[in-house]
Amino acid sequence: MADDVFSGSDEARSTQYSKYVRWATFDEPLALENGEKLPSVTVAYETYGELSPEKDNAVLICHALTGDSHVSAHDENDEPGWWDIARLVGKGCPIDTNRYFVICPNVLGGCRGTTGPNCINPKTGKPYGKDFPNITIGDMAEVQRRLVAHLGVEKLLAVVGGSMGGHMALSWAVKFPDQVESVVALATSPRLSTQSLAFDVVGRNAIRQDPHYADGQYYDQPAGPDVGLAIARMLGHITYLSPIAMSEKFDATRDQPKDVKTDFEKEFSVGSYLAYKGQQFTERFDANSYLALSMAMDQFDLGRTVEELARAFAAGKARWLVVSFTSDWLFPSFQSKQIVRGLLRNGKGVTYCDVESHCGHDAFLLVEDVATYGELVRAFLRNALGAGRHEPLDARWEDHSPTSIFHQSRRLDYDTILKFIPPDTSVLDLGCGTGGLLSRLREQGHTRLSGVEIDQRNILACARRGLDVVHRDLNKGLEWYTDKQFDVVVLSRTLQAVYDVEHVMDEILRVGRKCVVSVPNFGYYKLQDMLQREGKAPEAGVLRFKWYNTPNIRVLTIRDFEDFCAAKGITIHDFIALDTEEDKEIPADRNPNRNADMAVFVISR
Amino acid sequence: MADDVFSGSDEARSTQYSKYVRWATFDEPLALENGEKLPSVTVAYETYGELSPEKDNAVLICHALTGDSHVSAHDENDEPGWWDIARLVGKGCPIDTNRYFVICPNVLGGCRGTTGPNCINPKTGKPYGKDFPNITIGDMAEVQRRLVAHLGVEKLLAVVGGSMGGHMALSWAVKFPDQVESVVALATSPRLSTQSLAFDVVGRNAIRQDPHYADGQYYDQPAGPDVGLAIARMLGHITYLSPIAMSEKFDATRDQPKDVKTDFEKEFSVGSYLAYKGQQFTERFDANSYLALSMAMDQFDLGRTVEELARAFAAGKARWLVVSFTSDWLFPSFQSKQIVRGLLRNGKGVTYCDVESHCGHDAFLLVEDVATYGELVRAFLRNALGAGRHEPLDARWEDHSPTSIFHQSRRLDYDTILKFIPPDTSVLDLGCGTGGLLSRLREQGHTRLSGVEIDQRNILACARRGLDVVHRDLNKGLEWYTDKQFDVVVLSRTLQAVYDVEHVMDEILRVGRKCVVSVPNFGYYKLQDMLQREGKAPEAGVLRFKWYNTPNIRVLTIRDFEDFCAAKGITIHDFIALDTEEDKEIPADRNPNRNADMAVFVISR
Repeated sequence: MADDVFSGSDEARSTQYSKYVRWATFDEPLALENGEKLPSVTVAYETYGELSPEKDNAVLICHALTGDSHVSAHDENDEPGWWDIARLVGKGCPIDTNRYFVICPNVLGGCRGTTGPNCINPKTGKPYGKDFPNITIGDMAEVQRRLVAHLGVEKLLAVVGGSMGGHMALSWAVKFPDQVESVVALATSPRLSTQSLAFDVVGRNAIRQDPHYADGQYYDQPAGPDVGLAIARMLGHITYLSPIAMSEKFDATRDQPKDVKTDFEKEFSVGSYLAYKGQQFTERFDANSYLALSMAMDQFDLGRTVEELARAFAAGKARWLVVSFTSDWLFPSFQSKQIVRGLLRNGKGVTYCDVESHCGHDAFLLVEDVATYGELVRAFLRNALGAGRHEPLDARWEDHSPTSIFHQSRRLDYDTILKFIPPDTSVLDLGCGTGGLLSRLREQGHTRLSGVEIDQRNILACARRGLDVVHRDLNKGLEWYTDKQFDVVVLSRTLQAVYDVEHVMDEILRVGRKCVVSVPNFGYYKLQDMLQREGKAPEAGVLRFKWYNTPNIRVLTIRDFEDFCAAKGITIHDFIALDTEEDKEIPADRNPNRNADMAVFVISR
Repeated sequence: MADDVFSGSDEARSTQYSKYVRWATFDEPLALENGEKLPSVTVAYETYGELSPEKDNAVLICHALTGDSHVSAHDENDEPGWWDIARLVGKGCPIDTNRYFVICPNVLGGCRGTTGPNCINPKTGKPYGKDFPNITIGDMAEVQRRLVAHLGVEKLLAVVGGSMGGHMALSWAVKFPDQVESVVALATSPRLSTQSLAFDVVGRNAIRQDPHYADGQYYDQPAGPDVGLAIARMLGHITYLSPIAMSEKFDATRDQPKDVKTDFEKEFSVGSYLAYKGQQFTERFDANSYLALSMAMDQFDLGRTVEELARAFAAGKARWLVVSFTSDWLFPSFQSKQIVRGLLRNGKGVTYCDVESHCGHDAFLLVEDVATYGELVRAFLRNALGAGRHEPLDARWEDHSPTSIFHQSRRLDYDTILKFIPPDTSVLDLGCGTGGLLSRLREQGHTRLSGVEIDQRNILACARRGLDVVHRDLNKGLEWYTDKQFDVVVLSRTLQAVYDVEHVMDEILRVGRKCVVSVPNFGYYKLQDMLQREGKAPEAGVLRFKWYNTPNIRVLTIRDFEDFCAAKGITIHDFIALDTEEDKEIPADRNPNRNADMAVFVISR
């Protein structure tokens, strides 16, 4: 069967180990979380790059269910690794092996060199088979910890993982909070969704009910449970792709299956694909490992509620990068958001992005979206290594998000907002754009800074500046934050672009002890005059948008905002009106409702 | 194993036939679409209600993959039928057996009485097994047609089906266009999505690779391919539920599996559920039927493009009701929309609703959303039977959709719009609400009327009035319609609530030879004066909304609209300005931009 029948896959890989694989054996018995013991453990691993003299540049990569230690080719003659399609690891890559010392072990329970069910059980002299103990994700992390220590690393710069590898990264943060500077969790979850768990159940049933499974002791038999394993793999493949990706791949050629050699059905193009993938998988993977690892994944459970997750993540000072993919239905975005909420609840530093993608769960392995998720990883790791030296990559302060309604680039309202923020306060900037205001606050010595932003390009810009910003639509409210979690919540030039104003106002007043809100004033005399003289609606006036294309969907005056506060029981503590065109303040006795084009309010409830 | 371990399912049914099952045998050989022949066919069926003397009230119900003829209990002592959870069929139910003569046959290839793989092959004297010919959905429809004729029915009032049953309904419309008055297609598709087809492939592989499958001749063996069939069914079950429904059902009790007697894994609550469902299914279903029917479903293909679907649906005059469910990922909404587009392309009468639901594909069988989909079926069938006698259920003309911006209930703009619509023209009303304008046009003798509406409650109101309205968000454009498909497109008091005005305007001008657009005028003197005197934004003035909660997110004057038309190359043919508060027209020389609160334009490009 030719390897290139279906291209672009991690499947078409050698069943041989790379010559760069190393082994480390730990003879100290391993006490498993479920109470059993393994007398000793061997770990197969590969490393890339050099450990710095300060030993501060080590990055641990945790692979997913069917991955292994070979994350990347070591040289031109080496086989490609499982992250090489995306070119994520290597010289000059996001996980830059010129900069970082990368460690990638095969996991406990795997079948690619590390102790697993296909290894000899010293008690019986035969492979463990189904007598291999019931292991957990935490056990895998413990084995990795031994390896990391063995390599002379006391604290990891970062632990990085996607999917089940993300479970291990989360587990590190929970079990060894003082041994990780930062965590990169891609396309993962605090526990599987019930739907995803159910698919695993069906896959395991297919393996165990295969008559060749022989109660797990098939190693000395002429045939193993290849049919069951192939069926589990076929099912897995469907869940790794998004429906749209499957459609793009197979819809047009539905009735043209490829002529693969298989005992499975090959009626449709997707059928021949699944048959090929399923059968191929049995050549490189062990069914008992599949059972052990998928069960460990299914039992992984940091909590179902935000409160439980907050408790799990309470210890340690790691900074986090969490990335999900919009079309991932196996580890859906809402689960990454749960992780983020658990972290925010503890005031942890976290950057989160829900990458717009067609690629489903596999997105974190593929090249299509690497410009976003790869660059987020690059920026995040750079800032982790260079913590304290935040060099803004973009020298210009101003951002040009669609809610910036005025012509000039200088953001006078920033100066005004900064006046209202006392030193040493915690600040949440809503609709923070590329992080201009947050950067200025950091320059002034603020440390407890957080941002919320809807545009994923801006999230990347903030990550490059080393700012902690989460990806979220304000219209959905601030349920991610607790009551009075921040000293100051800033809503700068954003309210007029929000649909559900009442909800957003309620939310910012709930979350902030004080709120600083800047709003455009549609009572500005130039706009009024335009309406009166030319009969044109305010929006069609001096602003750079027209009535039909402006992002500003809420038209209000300073008076309207004051009336709103009065009606809703909101206290106005302070107020500055601005004519940003003329770059000056409008004093209260100079009729700001006509003469200002913008106002900044300090309010609370 | 107790039936009530997992409740609320169609599974817990007797393996015995209802005493109301009848059989009809057709000895004329059946020429199958794939070229083979069946020497004779027997059909098991049940009927409910009485055929009217005019023979105009027959409704054919087509069941889904694992259903049968027992759609509903015939009396109190009878077993529940597969649509009885929703109470869809019966006296007083949406498919009212006091009103309609309901026919429900078991399908060709099934295992519940109709000729299928478990029946005796006259050539061999043994069950067909895998020698049962490769049948199609069209063959099933042909067998149903024979039965319908046998029962003395020349033309069906309606053919109704969900899921694979929907495929049969579509097939009737394509194969026998003159024998169906109307089609009700629920949770179905013109062809399976690749993802759904892939799940079927995995299920069939599990069955065929089961050693007890014995190449399909397992009927005289001690055991059949129960493991494979159960695995296919477990997989099916996951796809019938939405992720959110699974989560609601199993998340909280994840680690509390029920103690079901099973050879399958029962580690998690969802695992015990799947084990139970899978095992139970093998007691009532035949694996060869599962293979034959699922393959027929997978090969069903009316076309991948709208053009292909339009060709398929070209013949006949049936009216259509198409219903999808938002959380259905097995037969996702976009596929029902493809059907609707194919019908609209031909100018067919079609009502479409995408029912907001948590229940996934199973929604069409369950009670949760029956208040919408069931009532749509009820209203649609009533109008089908009573065609010509459209009695509006709601005597009040006016609708109160959120875009009705003025106080008074009388819609003066309707009168004005009606003036602009010549007799015998085709009209598309966008944002048609409960169908007030369309009803008035129908009263005036118009017949080629269509509506688009975003609110599913309004879709139901329109269906009750016998109007053809499709469920769609205008902001997504009018790609469902071709260039100049309608003589007149009406956009009444909706433009100001649209986000992407330019796109919507381009679209209505593309689809309509002429367009009648009514817009509010925010240059109205009362609003201007309020801004000038009180400093309040126009929206906060005399209208019943405030700036922060109005659905009107686009603020424009009559002048703005005129400027827009000039800038975009749009011709204004006619124009009437109104003061709807005073209930009068404002002539052109009386400064409508100040004195009118609304204007109606006739435009084209």
